[in-house]
Amino acid sequence: MDEKIALIEAGGTKFIVGVGDASRRIHARTRIDTTRPEETIPAAIDWLRAQGGGYTAVGIASFGPLDLDPASATWGHITRTAKPHWSDADVAGPFARAFDCPVAIDTDVNGAALAEWTWGAGEGANSALYLTVGTGVGGGAVVGGRLIHGLSHPEMGHIRMPRHPDDAGFDGHCPFHGDCLEGLAAGPSIIARWGASLSDLPGGHPGHEIIAWYLAQAALSFQAILSPSRMIFGGGVMETQGLLDRVRARTAEAGAGYFVGDPAEVIVAPALGHDAGLLGALALALRLS
Amino acid sequence: MDEKIALIEAGGTKFIVGVGDASRRIHARTRIDTTRPEETIPAAIDWLRAQGGGYTAVGIASFGPLDLDPASATWGHITRTAKPHWSDADVAGPFARAFDCPVAIDTDVNGAALAEWTWGAGEGANSALYLTVGTGVGGGAVVGGRLIHGLSHPEMGHIRMPRHPDDAGFDGHCPFHGDCLEGLAAGPSIIARWGASLSDLPGGHPGHEIIAWYLAQAALSFQAILSPSRMIFGGGVMETQGLLDRVRARTAEAGAGYFVGDPAEVIVAPALGHDAGLLGALALALRLS
Repeated sequence: MDEKIALIEAGGTKFIVGVGDASRRIHARTRIDTTRPEETIPAAIDWLRAQGGGYTAVGIASFGPLDLDPASATWGHITRTAKPHWSDADVAGPFARAFDCPVAIDTDVNGAALAEWTWGAGEGANSALYLTVGTGVGGGAVVGGRLIHGLSHPEMGHIRMPRHPDDAGFDGHCPFHGDCLEGLAAGPSIIARWGASLSDLPGGHPGHEIIAWYLAQAALSFQAILSPSRMIFGGGVMETQGLLDRVRARTAEAGAGYFVGDPAEVIVAPALGHDAGLLGALALALRLS
Repeated sequence: MDEKIALIEAGGTKFIVGVGDASRRIHARTRIDTTRPEETIPAAIDWLRAQGGGYTAVGIASFGPLDLDPASATWGHITRTAKPHWSDADVAGPFARAFDCPVAIDTDVNGAALAEWTWGAGEGANSALYLTVGTGVGGGAVVGGRLIHGLSHPEMGHIRMPRHPDDAGFDGHCPFHGDCLEGLAAGPSIIARWGASLSDLPGGHPGHEIIAWYLAQAALSFQAILSPSRMIFGGGVMETQGLLDRVRARTAEAGAGYFVGDPAEVIVAPALGHDAGLLGALALALRLS
């Protein structure tokens, strides 16, 4: 093992912490409940120390929003979040001080996008977008070999959307924007409308078509702006049987042959499974060298 | 003059052809009507030869869609277009053969995005998006110092859009997608609804608010996907008095403070004026070295 890399998948309900190396192996991992920063982060550091220390780098794939401006005094901090106790929390700093080595931090979805592009469903593609559809909707993309950043990281769940004609009565569930993608297609919006998760709705329920249609509109906007070689759609909602194929079909219909790339080939499921979060942290850390 | 660069702004109604250098100067230019490829392209080559030849590079900023895959046998060709005679036309090849030097080709809007980022309204920004709103809507973006490409170039005019409540009766004017951004906000859609261009509608006409609202929805989707430091909105429709300020205001309202960046600073007018097309070709050519 040439390098020993500390890995943190920082989620809103749990931190997964692990030890990896440059050969994509993960040697150990644990789970720590996300409570308060002053409890959760030291617990992660303690566990990493118990694995022997000696880390050459730390990779963190975190919930957000994050300050990722390298020139900022609050680089590596969470900015404002609805999650209690975590607004303005310094996530990267404690690990940098504890292990005295470079720290890479980015959003969990940027980590997943980079990992899927490096080792998974986007491997070999000239560009890849990763979208997770679950409790929220988030996404990241690798273009020209690099993750997209601008003033901040993407917030792909908040793109604007047309309205499905059979869904006109619903206000949308995003506390910021109402009927953005997340407000119309994330898990809580499905439960708010139909009282069950998409996978629990019967096969003939109109919710299946409506959610697939929204995700297809999102895919079309992604094609129009990024023309990605792969669009990797993951997350709990995407595990609904038949949904991926429905999204492909609706994207092909609505695109009307205008965009380059057959949606049946471009839109794919993730390939990295349950290790995607830690592998995202690893992919971010390997970018440091 | 260290380099002599042949510049072509290939538009659907006219080709502007010029001679430039690496110091951003344009020394000569002419206009050639766009008729058929076998007439227009040789006329451009003849004019360039009459300027003395000896070009070190050719830059072409062209209408599209274009095949920009370097591995493709039809790289530098227009693909399918509604413009008669130009489907499958080889645009780059004749210039490469005539002047025996490297040829850079990209879309006109990618050229404009690169030129505005290099010398204009996006200078110094870490990322910049350029959108033109005119007879059509098109856009390009520089992220991480490079133009976005994927399977193909962006087609930003065709992102999906929510519908303004006072515009529900309009089907949209895009022949491919109906009510995409171009179908709802390009010049012909304005004339189709209200019988005049936006700048000719009286100040209190609801069209002003409706078009600003659509462009704000587009700006929000761009922020969500790219988080650009600058969004440069140009084209004939954007010359309507007060429109840019309206777009800024609607973007700020609908964004609800969620995205990083104040729309009043992020959304700006182009800075390169009438030379933007040729400067786009020049910026593309300078990327060859």
